[in-house]
Amino acid sequence: MGLCRQLVRQKLYFLLAGLVFLYIVYRSFPCDSGPSLVMVPKEQTKFMYDDRHRAIPYGDDMPIIFVGGMPRSGTTLMRAMLDAHPEIRCGEETRVIPRILGMRTQWERSALEKKRLTEAGVTGEVMDSAVRAFILEIIAKHGPAAPHLCNKDPFTLKSTVYLNKQFPNSKFILMIRDGRAVVHSIITRKVTISGFDLNSYRKCLSKWNSALETMYSQCLHVGQGKCMPVYYEQLALHPKEWMARILRFLDIPWNESVLHHEEFIGKPGGIALSKTEKSTDQVIKPVNVDALSKWVGSIPDDVVRDMESIAPMLRTLGYDPKANPPNYGKPDPEVADNTIHIKKNADFWQRREVDVRQNGADDTLPQQQQPQQQPQQPQQLQQQQGIVLQQQPPNGVLSQDQGYVGRVERMAVNEQRGKGR
Amino acid sequence: MGLCRQLVRQKLYFLLAGLVFLYIVYRSFPCDSGPSLVMVPKEQTKFMYDDRHRAIPYGDDMPIIFVGGMPRSGTTLMRAMLDAHPEIRCGEETRVIPRILGMRTQWERSALEKKRLTEAGVTGEVMDSAVRAFILEIIAKHGPAAPHLCNKDPFTLKSTVYLNKQFPNSKFILMIRDGRAVVHSIITRKVTISGFDLNSYRKCLSKWNSALETMYSQCLHVGQGKCMPVYYEQLALHPKEWMARILRFLDIPWNESVLHHEEFIGKPGGIALSKTEKSTDQVIKPVNVDALSKWVGSIPDDVVRDMESIAPMLRTLGYDPKANPPNYGKPDPEVADNTIHIKKNADFWQRREVDVRQNGADDTLPQQQQPQQQPQQPQQLQQQQGIVLQQQPPNGVLSQDQGYVGRVERMAVNEQRGKGR
Repeated sequence: MGLCRQLVRQKLYFLLAGLVFLYIVYRSFPCDSGPSLVMVPKEQTKFMYDDRHRAIPYGDDMPIIFVGGMPRSGTTLMRAMLDAHPEIRCGEETRVIPRILGMRTQWERSALEKKRLTEAGVTGEVMDSAVRAFILEIIAKHGPAAPHLCNKDPFTLKSTVYLNKQFPNSKFILMIRDGRAVVHSIITRKVTISGFDLNSYRKCLSKWNSALETMYSQCLHVGQGKCMPVYYEQLALHPKEWMARILRFLDIPWNESVLHHEEFIGKPGGIALSKTEKSTDQVIKPVNVDALSKWVGSIPDDVVRDMESIAPMLRTLGYDPKANPPNYGKPDPEVADNTIHIKKNADFWQRREVDVRQNGADDTLPQQQQPQQQPQQPQQLQQQQGIVLQQQPPNGVLSQDQGYVGRVERMAVNEQRGKGR
Repeated sequence: MGLCRQLVRQKLYFLLAGLVFLYIVYRSFPCDSGPSLVMVPKEQTKFMYDDRHRAIPYGDDMPIIFVGGMPRSGTTLMRAMLDAHPEIRCGEETRVIPRILGMRTQWERSALEKKRLTEAGVTGEVMDSAVRAFILEIIAKHGPAAPHLCNKDPFTLKSTVYLNKQFPNSKFILMIRDGRAVVHSIITRKVTISGFDLNSYRKCLSKWNSALETMYSQCLHVGQGKCMPVYYEQLALHPKEWMARILRFLDIPWNESVLHHEEFIGKPGGIALSKTEKSTDQVIKPVNVDALSKWVGSIPDDVVRDMESIAPMLRTLGYDPKANPPNYGKPDPEVADNTIHIKKNADFWQRREVDVRQNGADDTLPQQQQPQQQPQQPQQLQQQQGIVLQQQPPNGVLSQDQGYVGRVERMAVNEQRGKGR
């Protein structure tokens, strides 16, 4: 029996020694078919951490969502609604991603520079790899980690084809909005965009036209499965239907939160807003149709007359260039409701706006104004926040004559006219 | 004995099962103190491949060598000599690395932009991580892999402190050269550098002064162990001594190849030259002192008179602003030899220059002009290439009066004056 034990021990030692040896060999030569000698990379991990300190890996092949379009076309609303989804993080405009894309385009376009770079070994491939690494680091790290990352910098969608090549599993959401409303908003809100002359509706509309031409054609080029055009008006009128479509397109499970984005502002895992971004004051409100036709009556007559030739993309995209305003459609009852509530409680929303601009969208708001972490019905929320409620008008009334939006919007236009122009 | 075998087998099975179980546990929870759940990154490996298809890992913590200084200060010579070392690859100027560094500096300097970026989550840390990733991809991929990577873009040394923080194991070589020679070279060769007015020696010297001030102070700031100032004149006069010092500073073993860089141009694992870089025509020649004092006699009298106040860095760096030229020292016999040979075989070197510009520094040269892959003595090479040899003058003669450099250089200056000004 002593002999037997010795035998057992001996065999065990042999086995252990063998395993250790095999492990050492395995570590020295990880299998890789190409090269004759492979050394392990120094940085083995690329992680980001979410709000619960879970590490989530990131890489070029992750499914990044790019949201873009012309500024003032609902890109911030879109990203806020996506941000409300617990699995998605978009975050603020990074500002630097469109710039690095612009730099690359510039180098690419100059034949001399392109030649010099190629001579220096900085081929298109090397450049792409560097640009990709830059973009990926910014997207992954400028906000908390999430299983689905998303980026919203309006003009990135001008590089849809390029981005699609760099991030093969990415998807694109192109926000489209009536160019007249976009330009009206840019001019009245004094949004500085390089190349846009804020004194001329005509020039701005023509710029809108060419930007949309580029973005729309690139969107069509990468195809339906990769890029989805979303009409701002439709999203605002029928948020539930459109968010369902969008999440199906993105292959992400439905979550009710996306319909109550205003409740997740400044919450962990919710929506981070920049104090300096122009659209911040609007996305703090629930989805509403307050802004759809504000432009009517503000555009000079000669521009209105030549609309079809100034901005042919209007018709291409399905907007009637002769209708002022066109019939965008009827809102869902919830949206109509939100719109009325926001009008009735203008003071509250203005205070909230000032709060967000001054203190950021964090927990510094007075206690009773803080939205709860759990999704709620809008009525619940408004009651908590002491908002004056108005009985929702019966649906039948809304559907008559030009529809509810038309009426609400005419109210808005009249109010604005009365105010000062 | 049958029982004994069974016992052995049983224990072996238990042991194996235990090991497999431990391995599974180990893979599921790699040790990381922070997060409660860790997922493996999608891209596990960051490799580059060298000319023998060996995979070499790269990362932020690899020891990158940054070579810089004012353009026309011997930065190309320096990187070519390093490139000749079988363990080092510098490669051509990437052009984009200084630009991304410039972009970052610009964002950093504008308070408004900095605020906007921080609001958007693009903090200094996030930006650095993106800039680092960009730079690393460019350095790693714009040339073949090598155990020691090196980058030469003259103005990167203006960001020595920043780069040192980003790449904590990097080292810096700051090329320093008499500002009068630098400016003369910039003006006569029409090297366009933004901010440099090529019509004014005075303005150019003052620009040289401020650039050197920035680079030199940053070099001192990161310290002796990290940044080494190398005087171009000394490198040209005493290449062996200085290359030995430089390799010691870099912790890289000595290799004779660095003294015969001209033999490795266009060879696999050797020196890749860009057809469009300005200095290409000069580094194809062996180390020589042809250019040290070419500037004497070209600088306007009033500028020569005010030299000390225009470019105080001259004195700081040890150049006598009143001497025209100062005594740079005596060359090693090999260098003196090279200089004479190059002068005697001006035709050959001009043909070689044209060849490199037109066909690139690859194997398209006529067979007998191709440098051999093995390092050789200069004499051997020159005999092979049918170059007229001149007996090396005895050393004693060289040491007399102003020394050999002085004489050779006066020859050069006279020749140039005779040619056309």
